[in-house]
Amino acid sequence: MQIERTDIGDIMSQAVVHGDMIYLSGQVSSNSDDVAGQTRDILDKIDTLLSRFGVQKTRILSATIYLADISTFSEMNEVWKKWVPVGATPARTTVEAKLAMPEFLVEITVVACR
Amino acid sequence: MQIERTDIGDIMSQAVVHGDMIYLSGQVSSNSDDVAGQTRDILDKIDTLLSRFGVQKTRILSATIYLADISTFSEMNEVWKKWVPVGATPARTTVEAKLAMPEFLVEITVVACR
Amino acid sequence: MQIERTDIGDIMSQAVVHGDMIYLSGQVSSNSDDVAGQTRDILDKIDTLLSRFGVQKTRILSATIYLADISTFSEMNEVWKKWVPVGATPARTTVEAKLAMPEFLVEITVVACR
Repeated sequence: MQIERTDIGDIMSQAVVHGDMIYLSGQVSSNSDDVAGQTRDILDKIDTLLSRFGVQKTRILSATIYLADISTFSEMNEVWKKWVPVGATPARTTVEAKLAMPEFLVEITVVACR
Repeated sequence: MQIERTDIGDIMSQAVVHGDMIYLSGQVSSNSDDVAGQTRDILDKIDTLLSRFGVQKTRILSATIYLADISTFSEMNEVWKKWVPVGATPARTTVEAKLAMPEFLVEITVVACR
Repeated sequence: MQIERTDIGDIMSQAVVHGDMIYLSGQVSSNSDDVAGQTRDILDKIDTLLSRFGVQKTRILSATIYLADISTFSEMNEVWKKWVPVGATPARTTVEAKLAMPEFLVEITVVACR
């Protein structure tokens, strides 16, 4: 079975598709200096990446959320709650972890399906 | 292909099923103030979630374990070793990460199949 | 559908195969005291594990990289860049996390397919 990729870089591809499964790279944002703003931008990026395969957020199976500072959990969660589809929320894991750049406050990795 | 979910909350679903794949949310526990007790409770929760789909722990493909303090690795491991099926252990990754609540000492995320 | 495993230990199996999906345990190395050396050794181990199923690194769908110290990001990345296949890079997430042993500087978990 063939593997399809988008936004292929020399380090990673932003989306990798195999059969009906879609694996996204961890999405980050530097368009805002607060967690809420970065979360909103990241969720937009996820919507955009999934839309290239004609897929909506109801098809997200699992999400892993890394927060640079776990005390921003509620701030991130408020944005998340407004974004996830009522009745179709994915499995989720949220932990604290320092991210690749000090300005990144949150990183979200999702696995979805067509 | 349809997606099935259980324990659907407004933030996450505890289990999401797609085809023969089962994705669980990161499981935590606050019923004990030591890692061994929390690990036991978490593994019970995983058994219970999987049992809703008629699935046993021999069908776990991979597990990611987050410890709030990596120095509790052996304590967690002792409970884990007694729980995993001999000859049918999953792929596993264990790292340190602060968790959503300071009382959470361990969080375990599993991917299983029917 | 049957589950196949290799290097089955009492805690984890190094590779777990279900259908055409391959889940590897987080790979670590203690053969070097720098990140570049450990990364090289880990990527060798991943090549070896995948080769048991006749699979090459072009079939890696996603990778999660945990660095004990995120300031070693570039060092790890230099080795990674030389290893990943041009035009066939996987989805990737990289975060900082303390690992099971203080000598482990990097741990890499991959999901691949046949």
